[in-house]
Amino acid sequence: MEKVSLADAFASIDESWNPHLAGELNGQAVKLAKAEDEFVWHSHADADELFLVTAGRLRIEFRDDDDAVLDAGELIVVPRDTEHRPVAEPEAEILLFEPAGTRNTGDVENELTREELERVDG
Amino acid sequence: MEKVSLADAFASIDESWNPHLAGELNGQAVKLAKAEDEFVWHSHADADELFLVTAGRLRIEFRDDDDAVLDAGELIVVPRDTEHRPVAEPEAEILLFEPAGTRNTGDVENELTREELERVDG
Repeated sequence: MEKVSLADAFASIDESWNPHLAGELNGQAVKLAKAEDEFVWHSHADADELFLVTAGRLRIEFRDDDDAVLDAGELIVVPRDTEHRPVAEPEAEILLFEPAGTRNTGDVENELTREELERVDG
Repeated sequence: MEKVSLADAFASIDESWNPHLAGELNGQAVKLAKAEDEFVWHSHADADELFLVTAGRLRIEFRDDDDAVLDAGELIVVPRDTEHRPVAEPEAEILLFEPAGTRNTGDVENELTREELERVDG
């Protein structure tokens, strides 16, 4: 068992929108990502996704609902099959909980897709 | 979809070691608890458990391993079947991520056991 310091872990991440693995439990993954400006519109067919903002501000846009604006210390669960686009204003640090193996860009594959996640230095 | 503010949620909790439900996803639950002094030794047969400390300091004692000492912004995953005792020094606010329905006192039932969790005001 090794604890993870969010500060140390985020300090080890040098690329925005590249989620790093901070832990796994019960088939789920805890991921940390730095966010800057816009991500891509996408959805996850089989995965509800929790966003917890630990620094900065993240706006999450939805096709069929009002935007959610999350500051540090705020979380939201985005249900599966919900098209969404995270937008950092202008930067944020975020913790994600979701099933292990959930692809960051969901149903979209592009230059932001990350399939093999690095583990954080915690 | 409703966001949860950890500050507002913790302000709505008035009892230590009484976990409140902040969200559910993929069969898992996000719980928030205020901690003060010692909890009970226990384990969870079928549940790995994540602790993320958001305020204060939490020490987690293990029968077969060194203590883990978590300050705000630090997390650890306690594997299933691992006997542990959380001890706040002297108070802490913690976020838990574990399978929905996991009993707070695990294999132990006593006056600290909470079966029906209230939902936080977020």
